[in-house]
Amino acid sequence: MSSSVSPLAPKHVPDLPTIAGVRLATAEAGIRYKNRTDVLLAIMDKGTAVAGVFTKSKCPSAPVEWCRAKLKGGKARALVVNSGNANAFTGKTGRSSTALTAKIAAKAVGCSESEIFLASTGVIGEPLDATKFDGVLGGLAETAEAGDYLAAAKAIMTTDTFPKVATATVKLGKAKVTINGMAKGAGMIAPDMATMLSFIFTDAPIAPAALQALLKAGVEDTFNAVTIDGDTSTSDTLLAFATGAAAEHGAPKISRASDPRLKAFVKAFNQVLANLSEQVARDGEGARKLVEITVEGAKTKASARKIAMSIANSPLVKTAIAGEDANWGRVVMAVGKAGEPADRDKLSISFNGIRVAKSGARDPSYDEAQVSEAMKAPEIAIKVSLGLGKGRDRVLTCDLTKEYVAINGDYRS
Amino acid sequence: MSSSVSPLAPKHVPDLPTIAGVRLATAEAGIRYKNRTDVLLAIMDKGTAVAGVFTKSKCPSAPVEWCRAKLKGGKARALVVNSGNANAFTGKTGRSSTALTAKIAAKAVGCSESEIFLASTGVIGEPLDATKFDGVLGGLAETAEAGDYLAAAKAIMTTDTFPKVATATVKLGKAKVTINGMAKGAGMIAPDMATMLSFIFTDAPIAPAALQALLKAGVEDTFNAVTIDGDTSTSDTLLAFATGAAAEHGAPKISRASDPRLKAFVKAFNQVLANLSEQVARDGEGARKLVEITVEGAKTKASARKIAMSIANSPLVKTAIAGEDANWGRVVMAVGKAGEPADRDKLSISFNGIRVAKSGARDPSYDEAQVSEAMKAPEIAIKVSLGLGKGRDRVLTCDLTKEYVAINGDYRS
Repeated sequence: MSSSVSPLAPKHVPDLPTIAGVRLATAEAGIRYKNRTDVLLAIMDKGTAVAGVFTKSKCPSAPVEWCRAKLKGGKARALVVNSGNANAFTGKTGRSSTALTAKIAAKAVGCSESEIFLASTGVIGEPLDATKFDGVLGGLAETAEAGDYLAAAKAIMTTDTFPKVATATVKLGKAKVTINGMAKGAGMIAPDMATMLSFIFTDAPIAPAALQALLKAGVEDTFNAVTIDGDTSTSDTLLAFATGAAAEHGAPKISRASDPRLKAFVKAFNQVLANLSEQVARDGEGARKLVEITVEGAKTKASARKIAMSIANSPLVKTAIAGEDANWGRVVMAVGKAGEPADRDKLSISFNGIRVAKSGARDPSYDEAQVSEAMKAPEIAIKVSLGLGKGRDRVLTCDLTKEYVAINGDYRS
Repeated sequence: MSSSVSPLAPKHVPDLPTIAGVRLATAEAGIRYKNRTDVLLAIMDKGTAVAGVFTKSKCPSAPVEWCRAKLKGGKARALVVNSGNANAFTGKTGRSSTALTAKIAAKAVGCSESEIFLASTGVIGEPLDATKFDGVLGGLAETAEAGDYLAAAKAIMTTDTFPKVATATVKLGKAKVTINGMAKGAGMIAPDMATMLSFIFTDAPIAPAALQALLKAGVEDTFNAVTIDGDTSTSDTLLAFATGAAAEHGAPKISRASDPRLKAFVKAFNQVLANLSEQVARDGEGARKLVEITVEGAKTKASARKIAMSIANSPLVKTAIAGEDANWGRVVMAVGKAGEPADRDKLSISFNGIRVAKSGARDPSYDEAQVSEAMKAPEIAIKVSLGLGKGRDRVLTCDLTKEYVAINGDYRS
């Protein structure tokens, strides 16, 4: 774990209100870390809807497989998250471990095992000793309170340098509903850490299928548009829980994602996802710069996304930004290697609003000193105009520093 | 440019024999560097066949476009290579610059402009002043000798820490033929350097179409199976020249790549390509470890290649190797993110012959101390067995070190 907070951490951490129907508790279970909380139990009232999206990895962790299977029921009563051990690539032991954790949790909460959702993050390939949850989860269930989302966000951290929370309050019908979220990130993965986990809680009464549709649409331009190093965790998990408690204050029960009454809610929900995913980029391992890459004028949005990701994942682009070098030649390279339609002679590129390349060559007004000064900012916006069509997209990443190499090359030794 | 030679440089540099029909000369043209050669002129006798493969970038450099167009003629009389400026992303100026360079070279050599082949490497986006070749190429044409391939390899270097040459002598029919090659590499690209360029010369009498077929097949498991950082240059160029001079000593004229008399030649040709491409990996920017990744038991060879490349380009795998950490969890991650068929529970992984993971979990005989000792070697072989089919492939890469970040983050400042 890093000892110093990322310089890109948000200056302001919001106070999160409570959400009716959700209770939280954390504990030090000693899974791997000492002297810090490493287990979170969230208990939801009966009738809570659940939705989830997961890593696309072909080698997912045992908890991801567990959640995928249980999601079919659409109902959740509890979430158990541990940090320190990802329970990934642990074979049959991993499956037994998730089953045992769910059994212990179900007993503690008083519900069916199929209503328990699990997420683990930390080292890969080490068997997770689920018996450590025995005794712990029972106590947590007794002490769980409506409470402390920041403490919950801290318990799920691994290489994160700061806890990540976000909140929004919005009208659904005439009732006020709340959306709280937390996330952990850092690299896109790492045995000994850095999987992306995120959990969203709301009191809005939204049916499972509708919640799933909202979540799937919402991640597209938020969590799916963030990359640290192009690596994909075996454990990435984003779960959303809707307790429905706001129905008591008159919030309408929503069964379809296309319901027009959802409009403001969807906006707020997506803002929470965007806020959390941006915080993940801000806490990229070793990051010193937040980098926003916008590609416009592509043939399609999908083509713009592919090009933006090619730029965002290019080690040469990322090291240049770390070196405060407006190295647009490397951006051209990354555009070229994306394999998407691009015409060199129509390409324009700007860094923080200063155009450096135009119509396939260096901008005639290029001023090295001016650009170098702009590159010193902690936030760098790279804009690429392809001049081919109306496709546009935006992704977030961070720079690639010597600290990234140190964090990922040294930590297990 | 790096001041110290890569610790992975070959211990032995071969003496390259001359090749009948090829003359070489180098000069200090002051394109960008001072006090070093930066221009190579290779003159080939009339009747020399040429073949080429190039970057797949959608934004190729002006010299790549020039060569692609001239390749249709199948004949070459001269090759002009400069280091220091890639003439890439230079718009119309770039095209004029290649035309002018070819005109100057054609005059110096006494041939048609369409028989001139060009390659440039160095900074992107800076106009290349082709008038600098005027005067230089004429003198080079006069002094060119059968000569010094090592001097030629030095003239085309950018961030390379050592010149890369390889040679093979083999029978074609009853005649002895020679294959000489040189390459430059380092990162896969970089404005201020690091494109991959390679040139092969032989006196074998092979027709252009046959030479093109040989080259295309030969790169598949050599140059196309090497990656430094997953980035693709706008200028990657591999050209092969066959003077045909060995026909005078009885070498049969070959018109088809499938000619059975070519068997030994093809093997030697591919060995030269393999040798040069391995040297490129050995000189990866900041590299301290040469990494060979073998994937077996995949559904197909193409699937094995995709998985091997996913591992080879993973920053987390590469930083782990830099840290001498047998972090097989990250290898699992990279297998999973490749998107190819893989069954976690059948996966086995070894580092330098020591199996660390078996059947989807840590190998029961795993011994951390033994594996850690093995990871100290300068050459690391990672083997992944998928257990699904007979597809097998192998790629080469290097580790990702703080020096890579320093070289690519600091050099322009």
